[in-house]
Amino acid sequence: MTSIPPLPDTASGSELAPFDFLRPELDRVESRIHAQAREFDPAVEPYIAYILNTSGKRIRPALAFLAGGATGAIADDHHKLAVILELIHVATLVHDDIIDEAEIRRQAPTANAKWGNALSVLLGDCLFSHALMLSSEFEDSLIGRKIAISANEVCSGEIIQTQRRFDLQLTREDYFEIIRKKTAALFASAMELGARLNGRSEAVCESLRDFGLHLGTAYQIYDDCIDLIGEEKEYGKTLRTDLNKGKLTLPILNLLAGANERQREKLNRLLIQKEPIDIAALSSIADYVGAIEASLDTGQALVEKARACLEILDESEHKAALAGITSFLSVLLDGCRQ
Amino acid sequence: MTSIPPLPDTASGSELAPFDFLRPELDRVESRIHAQAREFDPAVEPYIAYILNTSGKRIRPALAFLAGGATGAIADDHHKLAVILELIHVATLVHDDIIDEAEIRRQAPTANAKWGNALSVLLGDCLFSHALMLSSEFEDSLIGRKIAISANEVCSGEIIQTQRRFDLQLTREDYFEIIRKKTAALFASAMELGARLNGRSEAVCESLRDFGLHLGTAYQIYDDCIDLIGEEKEYGKTLRTDLNKGKLTLPILNLLAGANERQREKLNRLLIQKEPIDIAALSSIADYVGAIEASLDTGQALVEKARACLEILDESEHKAALAGITSFLSVLLDGCRQ
Repeated sequence: MTSIPPLPDTASGSELAPFDFLRPELDRVESRIHAQAREFDPAVEPYIAYILNTSGKRIRPALAFLAGGATGAIADDHHKLAVILELIHVATLVHDDIIDEAEIRRQAPTANAKWGNALSVLLGDCLFSHALMLSSEFEDSLIGRKIAISANEVCSGEIIQTQRRFDLQLTREDYFEIIRKKTAALFASAMELGARLNGRSEAVCESLRDFGLHLGTAYQIYDDCIDLIGEEKEYGKTLRTDLNKGKLTLPILNLLAGANERQREKLNRLLIQKEPIDIAALSSIADYVGAIEASLDTGQALVEKARACLEILDESEHKAALAGITSFLSVLLDGCRQ
Repeated sequence: MTSIPPLPDTASGSELAPFDFLRPELDRVESRIHAQAREFDPAVEPYIAYILNTSGKRIRPALAFLAGGATGAIADDHHKLAVILELIHVATLVHDDIIDEAEIRRQAPTANAKWGNALSVLLGDCLFSHALMLSSEFEDSLIGRKIAISANEVCSGEIIQTQRRFDLQLTREDYFEIIRKKTAALFASAMELGARLNGRSEAVCESLRDFGLHLGTAYQIYDDCIDLIGEEKEYGKTLRTDLNKGKLTLPILNLLAGANERQREKLNRLLIQKEPIDIAALSSIADYVGAIEASLDTGQALVEKARACLEILDESEHKAALAGITSFLSVLLDGCRQ
């Protein structure tokens, strides 16, 4: 496998070629995110500050800005939207890490590893409720409403995923529904609301929403492939958690879908009856029969669909940067081909 | 100790003398709460339905109705407010039960006892985000904003409480801040927003808010005393959890405040160095030196303050019922005197 970088880390300032010109905006959202930490109770602030420093790649804020810039101008409300979406995302990461018993995220100990599950449950709640409090402050109440709806979708996606762990009846349609909710919904909101804050037409808002849905889905597929085949050192987070936690991702679902009865029995044994699961063996089989490649193809097709959604926009450096993100993800997906 | 009933169980229809005439409203909110369960993903619905059936005493909905009735009329928005506040409350109960490792609530297994912590974290999130999604639908966006602020206060209160477990430096002021946030904030919102939905003056809204704050604080003091001295069988929930989880409640804080150096050392040993904590011994000492009685006195004083806040209202059966609730809590507090 060639060396695959993670998606651009917009917080650290590296690997940001496609949206370098957004640096001032992203720096500003970064300070606003940190300023938010100070709005929590003084007793809670240091915990929140740590979490905000060590979680979240600021992809959603970047999308909110690019959607704003590509549909008019980046206003103060776009910064607010950016902060809110990132807080919601980070809140779900905190709860995810509890559920997955993950100990490392972005090279740093997770909240649960540092302070235990009890406090981490509440820290996630606090981030989440703070975000929804901020989202109730938009002058146009539709913005707050749409944020609340997508936050709710994220929670539903997570719950269906958890509830269907180790469920070999899970279909690819179920998988796509789960990742649409848990990941793509916030990408879609960043895009749609970025345009809506500029008062753009329903057609533009919808098209950018679709961009976010396709991009978010493709990104989750990439992330799921990395969990199966990536190197921990390279990604700075605990990998190989999906299968051990019973999360059936697209490569595995492809593998199951293509198996004959005898193979399916073998897979069932590997997935359900063995502890720990022999992930190296599964990954090799998935690679051999093309189940990983098929997932990457699906990801690429979604990236193409996302790119097509940009056609409705006039040319601008922001539109070009959105296209740049699709190209970047495309390269990442290709880098996973072994 | 005389037999003390729990606060009126507005869901089951028993022990409801002070607001029997609210029965149709409470029945309606009960059906709306259950209807909400059906608005979750079909995969999630049975879990949510179970939780809504086994959690929450519907005190906050009752307050929202009474505040509505006492300041004008009970409109559809009051039902919505009632449902939202109860969903937020139930969401926090689900997460509390994880943190406290509680196994029984209202005579039924808790979500974490039934389905484990992972799913329960997400079920709490789902209830919470659903409530905030509903709260973004009010025509007057100030209502949604105030709900989001109080939800955030509940989370902050919970977090400070968790973070300061086993912290013998906790003052009574700290304790009051914690319970104001974690319990009284939602009582206060039920009252204030019940009036605000009827377009009443700031003076009325503020006065009812204060009623909720005082009543909620007194109720939490009652609940904390019960945890120390009540009988599990009678209350249908796991008791004696506070001290074992390091929560220092008012009777214990009173005990610590009144101790001389020698006694404080003994208490420190009992509270920190012993495992499990000898709660029977602590409870007997607290009773003997009057620390429980002093807590009940504080509760009674708050009940009086709450009652005084009702003076701004014209006479009505709803106002009388609000006064009735204060009397009822007063009786409960007195019943704790040994």
